[in-house]
Amino acid sequence: MPSFEIDKKDFLKGLGLMQSIAGRRTTLPILSHLYMEWGKNSLYLTGTDLETGIREELTVNAEEEGKASISAKKLYEIVKELPEQTIRIQKKENHWITLQCERSIFNIAGLDPEEFPNLPTFQEKLFSPISTTVIKEMIDKTVFAASNEESRYHLNGILFTQQIMAGKEGLRLVATDGHRLSLIDREGQSVKGIEKGVILPKKGVLEIKKVLGDKTEVEEVGIYFDQTHGFFKMGPSLIAIRLIDGEFPEYEQVIPKGNDKVVKMEKDKIYACLRRVATMASERVEGVKVSLRQNLMELSSYHQDFGDAKEEVDVLYDGPPLEIGFNAKYLLEALQVMDTSFVIMELKDEGSPCMMKPDSLKTPTDQICIVMPMRI
Amino acid sequence: MPSFEIDKKDFLKGLGLMQSIAGRRTTLPILSHLYMEWGKNSLYLTGTDLETGIREELTVNAEEEGKASISAKKLYEIVKELPEQTIRIQKKENHWITLQCERSIFNIAGLDPEEFPNLPTFQEKLFSPISTTVIKEMIDKTVFAASNEESRYHLNGILFTQQIMAGKEGLRLVATDGHRLSLIDREGQSVKGIEKGVILPKKGVLEIKKVLGDKTEVEEVGIYFDQTHGFFKMGPSLIAIRLIDGEFPEYEQVIPKGNDKVVKMEKDKIYACLRRVATMASERVEGVKVSLRQNLMELSSYHQDFGDAKEEVDVLYDGPPLEIGFNAKYLLEALQVMDTSFVIMELKDEGSPCMMKPDSLKTPTDQICIVMPMRI
Repeated sequence: MPSFEIDKKDFLKGLGLMQSIAGRRTTLPILSHLYMEWGKNSLYLTGTDLETGIREELTVNAEEEGKASISAKKLYEIVKELPEQTIRIQKKENHWITLQCERSIFNIAGLDPEEFPNLPTFQEKLFSPISTTVIKEMIDKTVFAASNEESRYHLNGILFTQQIMAGKEGLRLVATDGHRLSLIDREGQSVKGIEKGVILPKKGVLEIKKVLGDKTEVEEVGIYFDQTHGFFKMGPSLIAIRLIDGEFPEYEQVIPKGNDKVVKMEKDKIYACLRRVATMASERVEGVKVSLRQNLMELSSYHQDFGDAKEEVDVLYDGPPLEIGFNAKYLLEALQVMDTSFVIMELKDEGSPCMMKPDSLKTPTDQICIVMPMRI
Repeated sequence: MPSFEIDKKDFLKGLGLMQSIAGRRTTLPILSHLYMEWGKNSLYLTGTDLETGIREELTVNAEEEGKASISAKKLYEIVKELPEQTIRIQKKENHWITLQCERSIFNIAGLDPEEFPNLPTFQEKLFSPISTTVIKEMIDKTVFAASNEESRYHLNGILFTQQIMAGKEGLRLVATDGHRLSLIDREGQSVKGIEKGVILPKKGVLEIKKVLGDKTEVEEVGIYFDQTHGFFKMGPSLIAIRLIDGEFPEYEQVIPKGNDKVVKMEKDKIYACLRRVATMASERVEGVKVSLRQNLMELSSYHQDFGDAKEEVDVLYDGPPLEIGFNAKYLLEALQVMDTSFVIMELKDEGSPCMMKPDSLKTPTDQICIVMPMRI
């Protein structure tokens, strides 16, 4: 019967990567399974929730090739407890497998591997390489702004689009939930299939982030898009993500143009102060009031049951007094993705969105966060 | 108006200790509050859920003494975000307080401190000292076996009772949930009020454990019991726990006497093997089968949906073959509280409880765990 041998540590790592995808949708039993297909030296592990699919190539020792479909969760639970030794897996009758490791013997029920849904096909030659550091940074700095509300499906995604920067091709990522927006550009990054812009669901993008967090040795990510999917190749891992079929909001119209009131502030100071004042904001709206005077920002909040808070912070500001309310969480999350010691906040009036960006010499700015104001 | 100054770090630590008790019962708003009473140099923070009360003495600087009652959770949230500086708290009208730290100002709503329930009164001179290491060990080695089921109120507790060991007074702790039991004796420990045995609720005992985990510098715990409460003094912390009013099971009758089949096993080996085999036990009963033969123990399990598992472990056993079922979790938790490299398991037959104890030279044994068998 077909069988293979694999190192416990390698197998556990591969199985770990599949856990958040396999079994996410419980309507189809086969989706809680992993598909395993092995040849002489390679095992391909595949998991999918029909939206995001992940495939991992692992090194094995096999005499006869084979296929199996086994519960992702149960297999992970078992392998986690095994000693750090070689595991031998053998195909049995009725889609069962036998797993042996030292003196442990497990007989595990499976399903017909032919029932496992195929990953979308991709073409190896279409992948463009992007530095892992760059794509990780771009994802980190946008994904937080995408919506988590299932009902706003077209806002659950991150826009990947082309951007010409100083005459060169570049990559732009944009995410927005309708209350705030985050945009980042990086030049010299060329990707196939994004000329018109494609929307990748947040959940899938978070899987890319997870794999990259795990594979610190992978220096380049291969990326391309076809009509229906985005493909990401990271060393032995491949992720295929179904694109969101919808219109991304006309984000360029949202970017404020006439914000003439400019505040320069120390990032860490404002961040800590915002966190303090936010403790007295009401849980539902998390509103804080920003009051600007000459070189001074006062943050304040009010909670119906608990009381109020206020704190002054020194900033650089030379405009007229202004009072404007924001959701504290949106400001905090925008500050968190700015890498510079100082951050620029551009405002117009109490009814207009503010724009935040890192205090750097780059023109045009390659990263912005926009936050809508709220009545306090 | 009354006010005090306190170091942020100290205050945060004190507030942290109260978080799991204050607000546990939400029926009475005042119970989600902390009671603060301060004199010239001391602040007493008190929190209670009416079953367990905790009081912490902190060093402050005050000009005028005062009292206040403030939401435990909100105060903790605020203080957590403050800079590592001095905090100034001032009493205001209508039970409000003002909290200042550097440039932050919080006005916080309170309740009438006179409404806060008193902790039971205790007498300083009645405390007997017990080594922190000893009481911690005794709690750790019993508390896991107490029941979590609210309906079995008399099994939700740990019995504290006196035990004469080799002619000297000693302390015995026992816990059982009806399926397993854990007992530990330590000699030379004398405590007032436990001659007839008292039952402390698990939740309160876990609070003692938490405070001791936090106060590693406290070398001795002062303990005594009156008719209704147990009192534990740990440096600046005092915990008062209302005793469970009920009969503890006649645990001495449960301790098996004629268990003539003795297995000596390597703790870590059996523990790892049990964890592996338990992955294939059914979630509901977690049953594993123990099959004994000459110097060999086979552990096996069966899961209706996923399959089966088995593994052999070398042990020292010279008796006849025996097959007996156990809840894997109970065996694992018993092994976890044994400190020796080898553990002794004494059995009689498939329908009788097994007794586990550390493999040590002490007679009589000062620690035992009993686990009831189950049909597999």
